[in-house]
Parts: sequence; C-alpha cells; structure tokens
Amino acid sequence: MAVVVQNIERAEQSVIDGLMSAGVATVHEAQGRTGLMLPYMRPIYPGARIAGSAVTISAPPGDNWMVHVAIEQLKPSDIIVLAPTSPCTDGYFGDLLATSAQARGCRGLIIEAGVRDVRDLTQMNFPVWSRAVHAQGTVKATLGSVNVPVVCAAALVNPGDVVIADDDGVCVVPRENAVEVLKKAQEREANEEAKRHRLAAGELGLDIYDMRGKLEAMGLKYV
Amino acid sequence: MAVVVQNIERAEQSVIDGLMSAGVATVHEAQGRTGLMLPYMRPIYPGARIAGSAVTISAPPGDNWMVHVAIEQLKPSDIIVLAPTSPCTDGYFGDLLATSAQARGCRGLIIEAGVRDVRDLTQMNFPVWSRAVHAQGTVKATLGSVNVPVVCAAALVNPGDVVIADDDGVCVVPRENAVEVLKKAQEREANEEAKRHRLAAGELGLDIYDMRGKLEAMGLKYV
Amino acid sequence: MAVVVQNIERAEQSVIDGLMSAGVATVHEAQGRTGLMLPYMRPIYPGARIAGSAVTISAPPGDNWMVHVAIEQLKPSDIIVLAPTSPCTDGYFGDLLATSAQARGCRGLIIEAGVRDVRDLTQMNFPVWSRAVHAQGTVKATLGSVNVPVVCAAALVNPGDVVIADDDGVCVVPRENAVEVLKKAQEREANEEAKRHRLAAGELGLDIYDMRGKLEAMGLKYV
Amino acid sequence: MAVVVQNIERAEQSVIDGLMSAGVATVHEAQGRTGLMLPYMRPIYPGARIAGSAVTISAPPGDNWMVHVAIEQLKPSDIIVLAPTSPCTDGYFGDLLATSAQARGCRGLIIEAGVRDVRDLTQMNFPVWSRAVHAQGTVKATLGSVNVPVVCAAALVNPGDVVIADDDGVCVVPRENAVEVLKKAQEREANEEAKRHRLAAGELGLDIYDMRGKLEAMGLKYV
Amino acid sequence: MAVVVQNIERAEQSVIDGLMSAGVATVHEAQGRTGLMLPYMRPIYPGARIAGSAVTISAPPGDNWMVHVAIEQLKPSDIIVLAPTSPCTDGYFGDLLATSAQARGCRGLIIEAGVRDVRDLTQMNFPVWSRAVHAQGTVKATLGSVNVPVVCAAALVNPGDVVIADDDGVCVVPRENAVEVLKKAQEREANEEAKRHRLAAGELGLDIYDMRGKLEAMGLKYV
Amino acid sequence: MAVVVQNIERAEQSVIDGLMSAGVATVHEAQGRTGLMLPYMRPIYPGARIAGSAVTISAPPGDNWMVHVAIEQLKPSDIIVLAPTSPCTDGYFGDLLATSAQARGCRGLIIEAGVRDVRDLTQMNFPVWSRAVHAQGTVKATLGSVNVPVVCAAALVNPGDVVIADDDGVCVVPRENAVEVLKKAQEREANEEAKRHRLAAGELGLDIYDMRGKLEAMGLKYV
Repeated sequence: MAVVVQNIERAEQSVIDGLMSAGVATVHEAQGRTGLMLPYMRPIYPGARIAGSAVTISAPPGDNWMVHVAIEQLKPSDIIVLAPTSPCTDGYFGDLLATSAQARGCRGLIIEAGVRDVRDLTQMNFPVWSRAVHAQGTVKATLGSVNVPVVCAAALVNPGDVVIADDDGVCVVPRENAVEVLKKAQEREANEEAKRHRLAAGELGLDIYDMRGKLEAMGLKYV
Repeated sequence: MAVVVQNIERAEQSVIDGLMSAGVATVHEAQGRTGLMLPYMRPIYPGARIAGSAVTISAPPGDNWMVHVAIEQLKPSDIIVLAPTSPCTDGYFGDLLATSAQARGCRGLIIEAGVRDVRDLTQMNFPVWSRAVHAQGTVKATLGSVNVPVVCAAALVNPGDVVIADDDGVCVVPRENAVEVLKKAQEREANEEAKRHRLAAGELGLDIYDMRGKLEAMGLKYV
Repeated sequence: MAVVVQNIERAEQSVIDGLMSAGVATVHEAQGRTGLMLPYMRPIYPGARIAGSAVTISAPPGDNWMVHVAIEQLKPSDIIVLAPTSPCTDGYFGDLLATSAQARGCRGLIIEAGVRDVRDLTQMNFPVWSRAVHAQGTVKATLGSVNVPVVCAAALVNPGDVVIADDDGVCVVPRENAVEVLKKAQEREANEEAKRHRLAAGELGLDIYDMRGKLEAMGLKYV
Repeated sequence: MAVVVQNIERAEQSVIDGLMSAGVATVHEAQGRTGLMLPYMRPIYPGARIAGSAVTISAPPGDNWMVHVAIEQLKPSDIIVLAPTSPCTDGYFGDLLATSAQARGCRGLIIEAGVRDVRDLTQMNFPVWSRAVHAQGTVKATLGSVNVPVVCAAALVNPGDVVIADDDGVCVVPRENAVEVLKKAQEREANEEAKRHRLAAGELGLDIYDMRGKLEAMGLKYV
Repeated sequence: MAVVVQNIERAEQSVIDGLMSAGVATVHEAQGRTGLMLPYMRPIYPGARIAGSAVTISAPPGDNWMVHVAIEQLKPSDIIVLAPTSPCTDGYFGDLLATSAQARGCRGLIIEAGVRDVRDLTQMNFPVWSRAVHAQGTVKATLGSVNVPVVCAAALVNPGDVVIADDDGVCVVPRENAVEVLKKAQEREANEEAKRHRLAAGELGLDIYDMRGKLEAMGLKYV
Repeated sequence: MAVVVQNIERAEQSVIDGLMSAGVATVHEAQGRTGLMLPYMRPIYPGARIAGSAVTISAPPGDNWMVHVAIEQLKPSDIIVLAPTSPCTDGYFGDLLATSAQARGCRGLIIEAGVRDVRDLTQMNFPVWSRAVHAQGTVKATLGSVNVPVVCAAALVNPGDVVIADDDGVCVVPRENAVEVLKKAQEREANEEAKRHRLAAGELGLDIYDMRGKLEAMGLKYV
C-alpha cells in the first residue's frame, strides 16, 4: 500500500511556465472550469504566483514522515502537493523542510492541512497554499505514499500534473492536457485584453456581449 | 419576478462621505449597533475604506449575469452589493467587471460569495469585501434582479442605502436615516477623542466611566 | 462567582523574553507539543511576535465590561487573554481599550472572539490574535472574572502563564515550567541551526535523520 | 430602541393552516423560491410540521429576557421567531419557557441560536427549529425588541408574517402575500400529483417535461 | 464538455450485495482505509444500508437538470452520486425525482449538496446521504455530465464503482477491486467475530493483540 | 510524557447517579453555568442520559492505541473521555471497543472526534457523544496518555470528574464539587417544578419573576 513512485512524467518546462504566466483564473476557465481546489486553500502571503509539476503525498493525519521521502523525488520547479488521508490542520511543514525542498529547486507547497514557520517561509520566498496556519507538530510513525493520485481540496491530482497557484487559489491541469490548455489560456488572454480596453472606455458588457435581447426574451423587466 | 429598478434614491454625497470618514465601527455604534454584516465578509486587501449608495443584486448561485445588468445602473460613488439566492462561494466578479464598474465610478463591491483576479483588483485599487476568494467561474443562464431589497451576510440592504466598508467589515445605513446617523457618529467621534487622551495618559476606564460602584453593587469581589 | 484576582505570580522577564525570541513553533515543540491554541486564532496583521504574562478574562458573550476591570490589573509586558463563556465573535476590544492597555505596558491581546478598529490597532502597533474581526459592539451589563483559569481556543490558561504569539499562532507555557521550556527551546534552536545548514546544502532529511532503514523495515516500496 | 409592538396583524387562520398543509418546499416554490432560512436551522425531532404568525424577538447574544416579554404577546397558533443580534449558540429556551408558550397556544419556536431541554420539549410535542442544541444558560440583563423586523438565518421576517416549518426547514411568507401564495401552492400540489403518478409508472421526466430537444440544442452529447 | 456516458460497466450483483452486507466501516478497512467520503455526508434517516453501482452526475451549483438525464441511465440497484461543480447546499432532489428513480430500481442517492421532501423520502424508504437538508429550489438551465468521474465529498467516484452507504457514512470501492475487497471484508468480519466474543467475556485488547510489550518499549509509564 | 495514571479518585456513586437524574441543563446551571462542552458534541442516538467518572484519554490525531490502554483502567459506571491533541474527526471507536468497554461496566463515551459502527452501538445501548460520525480507521503507532487532565470540546476534564451527558450535550462537574453541585441541582429542580405549574396554568414569567418594573426602568417601550 505504501509506495513511492520514482519516475513520473512531467510537462515541458515552457508549458508549465506559460500556464504560470496565465494564472489560476484564466487556466481554470481555459480547461472548462475544472481543476480548481476549494477556496479554503489560501496563500500564506500575498503576491506569489507559481506553477510546477506535482509531486504528490498521501499522508496520515498528524504524520509528516512522507514529506522527507517526497523531497528526494523533487526535480527543479516541482511543487509538493500533500493531501492528508483524513481532515487535519496540523503543521506538517516548516522552515527546515522548506530549506530542504528549496535546495532541490522546489517552487512551493500545496497542502490541505497546516503549515508553520510562516514568517520564515515568507522571508525565504517559499510560497505555501494551505488550509490552515498551525504550529502543531507532527510525528513520523506511519507510512503513506508518494506520487500516487490524491484528492486535494476536492481536486484530483495525479503526479506530474501541472499545478498553478496564485492569489486566486490553486488549479490543477492534467499533464496530458497541458499543451492544449495553455493554448486556450493564451487565446483567452488575448480576447480579454480587447474587452478590457472597451470596458475601460465605458462600453457596457450588455452591449459588448450583446445580452439585451436575450435578457428581454427571458423576461427581465426594467421598472 | 426578475426586475431591474432603474431609478433609486440616494443619500447626499456629503453625507455618504461623512459616513466613510467615520468608519464602520463608529457608524455601527451610532445607529444603535445595527446594520453590520457577518464577520466572514473580509476585504481582499487591507487599508481600504469606502462608502457609497448600494446598487443591489439578487443572483442565482454560480450565475453572474445580473452583474452586467447592474453595472449599467451605477452612478459615480455607488457600491455594488451582491447576495446570492443560496449560499455560494463562486467567483462572480473579476478584473473585467471591475474595469467596467470602475469606468462608471463604482467605489467597490460587497459580495456574499466569491471574487477572483484579486491581484489585479488590488493593483486597480478596486476594493472588494467577500465571503471567499475563489477562481470558480460562473454562467450567464438565469435571471435575477437588480435594485431590490436583499439580505447580504445577515444585513438587510435596500437599494440606495449607504454602505460603509473598511478593515472592520461592512455596515449598512438605511438611506432615510443617513443624516441622523452621521450626526450621531460625529458626536461619538468627538466624545471618543477626549476619552482617548485620558486613557493614553493612564486614566482607567473604571474611573472615567465611573464603574467601580456599580461593579461592587453587582457583587464583583476583589481577592 | 465573579472575582478579580489581584496578585498573580509572573515568570521572570528574561525568561518571557527568551520564549518570545524562540517563537511559537519552537516553544510548542520544546514543551512536548502542548499548549497550542486552535488555528482559527489569527493575528490582525502579519509580523508581530510577542510574549508576556497572561492576565485572563472570563467574560459573557457580547459583554466587554470585564476588560475595563482587567486593564487595572495589567503590569508592563502583560498580555490580556479573553475567553468568552460561550462561542462569540463580537468585537469586545477596539482602539480606546488598546490605548488604555498600551498605556499600562500591555504587549497585546489574545481573544477567542472578535476585535475591531483593526486599522487603528495596526497603526498603534498593538497586536491582537483573535477568532474574528468584527465591529459588533458589546454591552457592560453582566459580571465575569479576571485572573481565573480559562480555556481559550482549546488551551488551558492560568493567570501568570507565559503566552507567546506570532504568525504561527498562540502558545501557552505554564508559569512553573517556563524556565525549563526556555532551556529546551534554546537547545532545539541550536540543534535546528546545524540541520538547516546541511539541508540548505542539499543533504536529505532521509539521510540526516537516518530514516531509510526504518522506512524499508516498515514496508515502504519504491517503484 | 427597545420596543414591544403589541398589536400586529396576522393572516387568516385558514390561510395559515393551508400553508402548513402545503409544507415548506411547496410554499417556497410557490412564492418564487424565496423566504427560506439557511439549512443549518434543523428541527429538534423529526416529523413536526407547523405554521403560524411570527412573533419576532431581536435579542442580544446570551440574553433571553425578551422571550418572557414576547410570550405575553402570543396568540393561539403563533410561532416565536428569535434572531440574536450577533451569532450565538446559547440555549435561550427550555422546558419552562415552552410550558409558558404552549399555555398560550404557541405552536413552536424558530431560533437562530441554541435550545435546551430537548427531551422535555419532544415529550411536550413542542417543536423547535434551531441552529444548535446547547444547554448553555443565558442572562436577563439587556433589553431587546419584540415584534420588530428581524433577519433570521438569512430570511427577513416581519411580525405577523406566516412561518412554515417542517423536516425540510423553515420558510417565511410575507403576511400580505399569504393568500396568493397559498393559491399557487395548492395549484402546484395538484400539478405535482399528476406528475407523481406518471413518474411512478416509469415515465421519464425527460419526456414528461419535453427536455430532450432543448438538451440536444444546448449541446449535450450521448456517448 | 457536457456528455452522457450510456454504457458503463458494473460489478456483479452478488458482489455488490456482499459489500452491502459488510457495511461501510468494514469495507473501508478492507480496502486499506481508502474510499471514504467526508463525515458531513449524513443519512436523512437512521438505519438504512445500501450498496449499488454509481451513476454519477457532475452538475452546476443550483441546477438539477442533469438529474433527469441521469435517471434514464439507471438500472436496478444503481445509486445516483451527485457532485456539484462548486460547493452548494441547494435541494436538487425531492419526492418527484425519488419516485422516478425508485420506479427504475434505484436504491438511493448520494449528494454533496442538499435534498428536500425528506419526510416523503423517508416514507418511501428512499435513503439519501447528503451534505444538507434544504428546500431551496434549483433551475434547469445549464448542462453538466452524467457518468463521468467525479470527486464527491473528497472521494473519487468513477461510474460503475460500488458505493456502500449506511449510518457510518459512504464508501466507494473501485469496480475493478470489488471482488477482492469483498473477500477481504468477509475475512475481516470472521476475524472480528472471534475477537468480539473474547472482548465480551472481559479479555482486554491489550492482551488479545499483545500490546503490552510494545507500549512499554515505546516508553509508556504506568504511575 | 506518555503516562497512565492508574489510581484516580471518583465521586460517590449515589452522587453520580443523582447528577445523572438532574440532567445536563440543570447541573450546568447549578454550578454557575460552567463545565459545558461545545454544542458540536452530539449523541449518536436520542434519549440516552448517563453520568459517570471520567477516565480521560489524550490521543494523537488518527491514533486510537490509548483507547485499549484506557479500557483496562475502567471501573463500573465510568465514562471514557477522549480528546485528540489536534482537531480530528476519525473514527477512533467502534463496536469491538464498545464491547470491551461495556464488559467492564463503562456507561458510554465522550469523544471530541469521530465514532463508527453507530448502528451496532445503538443496538448495544452504548451511547456516544461525538464531534462526528465517521468510519475512518485509525492506527496504533504513537503513545498518548490516560487519566491526565484534558480539554475536551472547550471543557477542562480532570480524571475522576463527573461527566453528565444527555440530549442537551455534555457537562463536567469537578469531582470535589460534586456533592455541592448535586445539592444545588436538586434545589433548582424543586424550584422549577413550582414554576412549571404556574406557567402551565397561564401565569406569565413577567409576573412570576416580577420583571415589569425593571424592564420599564431600563427603558422598554410598549407601542
């Protein structure tokens, strides 16, 4: 049951970085409004935006042993995604683990549990999206798994999937769809840019998107 | 059922701005500790303080069509107040809608649901108080209403009411009471200023407010 | 029932300040992973770190009368710890009370309820860890107690216990253990410093902590 | 601020009883999917269904004094609706108050807070819909109001409005709409009865409601 | 994006019924403590225990159109599993849909949202495990999908997986593992029966499971 | 750190049974509205009422090893009180452990976490008050302590304290106060009985408790 999958496939770096540039909201839209984690996943400090390949951890509640195991599996630009096997807010991760992960090129952590030493992590520029900030310590007593599929904050994450995180939350793009999603995201961005200028100039969405007729047909009354 | 009320009455601008200056806590006290939204309504960035006339939206869960309709109804210094018809954390509002609303002079958004593109909104200086930050996209399929009474985060909001929002939360002042509430708020501020000086100098509230006798009469024991 | 205990014992200032320097996560570990408050206790602004002797308040929901009583009991570097007798998010504390507490040398407030005037408190550099930010006003009608044992956010706090609070949350050290906990905390810090350098250099926790054998013995499979 | 409105208008008893017979879900639909309280309002025992005119209470957190005041205002078949002025789970109401209310013909209690003595209330056949069951006692120290508009669990309730409660939750019908809503509810029930027979016989909603064409037009693919 | 997968594979009926007989807790253990939904999924009445093949629905918040589509796909003993695309407590399902589903042999509903008409459903003996009971009505305006993989209350559910539900909650067994999990569940039950007799006779788990030595070795002190 | 305290003092059986007879709400009032656990502690079935001496467990999240240790310490009529060291909803306890505990005369379980096999426990007449019902299995890997002070659902529980639980929740009486609290509870019951008759006969609390004058003095207005 307790396994470490050592060789996972990853998306191309340029694709990953393209998705990072597009950001969570755009990527989420580009893949048909899927892949988003629940809104309780919040960054420990504002302004960070990262993307990377998921190295996943399935860990028991209150037990961070598998984080050490996972760190060995990290490659530059990877992101750790930790889902506990039952709801937990303990602080699985702090400045020592961040130092170790950062030494291997890890871009950040997504954890459906707690994190601690957040002031240090902020100073290290190691971003974390978590369910809680909690100093509660954990044990190293029970095995879990690394690089298996996990459900993290309602999103299915397979190892090697592209994870994008910013102030809007966290979104997961299946590795095999990453190229196509990036393409759609970029189209969307181009499209939005034009809209933004028209809206900034005072045009209404009602007119740009030609909504008035449909609203009237559905029965909207102006009084 | 689905209506847009086009002509709403608003409080005078000077009254609105006076209430903004007083801030949420003072205004809430000045109107007898009423009108406050629930504490889960939080600003997307610290330090903003706004007041304006409410343009209200009643919208179905996960459907932001009515936001487009409401934007047309905005006048300078208005604030959009959106209450979903059932609990929802979806991201009804992002940078494009903010661009459009800001182009019409809108001062900000109060939404008992989610918001996205919060980094952009922060850079635009477009403040939002919301129940959640979530990138989750919404549809445009079902009608709602604009400028009808709504219950938003436990506060009743009638269109044209004055909404004040700052780091302490969001408070609603019925339009017809705005002048009187402002007067009381200003009296309260003056009163507090004197107290602040005495407290800063080391005087105790026990003495300033003459509480010792009443505490003793009620049975408080010092041991 | 309603009592104010006037003379409480406190830990030595140097011990208190040593614990402040160690921070919440380290102190919590140093005393065997105990004493931590629940993670919903959050600071109103980032970056503050305080420690002090607890002056405790047991107060009814929505009634802040005892805060005035408690302020008289404060000595320099004390911290107020307020636990309501039933769950409450009202704003018991704002800028006037902070002015008064600060005038007596109080370092901050821990409150399992709400706080208001948070912009003012931030400007005053008066840190608060609270369950909520809420402008909701309170009354002064019912007695409570000062300097009695309270349970605050799941932590037992006796008056005079050392309270440490930073971005990771809030931890309580029983006064009689403070010297010993400080010693262990400092040992832990020294120990961690060495680990940090090795981890930063790329060594793995798996090797530093000699985990590979035990993981294998327990059945972890690499595939 | 603290007032008791003594003479409130009520809907006709036959209308109230008709709405009770229709039940919460049907009435909610009949008035355009409005008026429903939040789903955390749950009955203390299953199987009860009541309707009555709302006698409303706005009460401070942890203070049940106004319940005594409200009981005097009850007329046979009335329902008490209590909304605290800030979130609270204390047990405002128990078997003694239920005895008193029942003696005046009260049909039950809707309370966005806690209730206690639930075993006794069950035996008395006095139903309650509440946010919590909690034995926590309350004080009688601060005034509130009786028969003023309140927001209870997100629903606006004016005194004299018809409140319907059953296993599905609680719904409020504005008094002035009660006759019309009852008419629509009864039409809806008749309509549903025919549908129920067809569905029980194995006909599909897809066919009964003629949905296939619209689904196809919108792009639903069968694979 | 919006698809209905019409032909899904199902486990054998005898295997499904065997898993039902074992119950949620045993099945969850038998498959390595996986597959469990979050504990907020509660039955609308006590005592029901069902198992069946999952017919899955991915539906927008507040939109139950796809339930009608899914009912056509039901075969006898199937269970509907509905996951909204974002958090929602609306009442997607009531007595009419239950009548229709039951007419096709459906054993029950698992819904990470709300349900209504619960008194009728109880009388019909149609069990539901839901996140909420709420009368809130839904629309039929936006497409979703039927028989696609969904994440429901943190559990991944593929169409045709075996779902077991009882008073302890809801567990999902991947279809391809069902035979093996049933075997392990039955072994576990046999094993437990022997243990139950010894424990009932007063033997201690400490002795039956031979724990004393290990506890002592790990440092447990009896004082 | 990990200890089992073997000899704890208990209150007299007649006192325990007297407190059981009085029930949670009355006992809570009799000891000055203290000792109550939070309202999320709910019984797994209605109608049970128990009291007993607390055998306490402090256990890591997701680890039920100490339950086996605690059962050996049980004496007839004891109640197990389990508090996890961090928030957890896992199912620490099921029918096998209940069989073992019941064989030693244990009256029930209070657990600020999850429980499973609730149908079996109901049939065994073994009542449990818990934070959650969840089948989630636990490990036996890390030590905790038995019969040490714990904070359970915000209540401080010392081993040997009297725990009373019924449909209203759970209340803790410090052992050394038990005799006095029982006396006050019985006085309260006698007092309430007289009130109940007067209220049932239609007298108002306003008159029985002589509230009218005080209400008027405080400014209550009848309109």
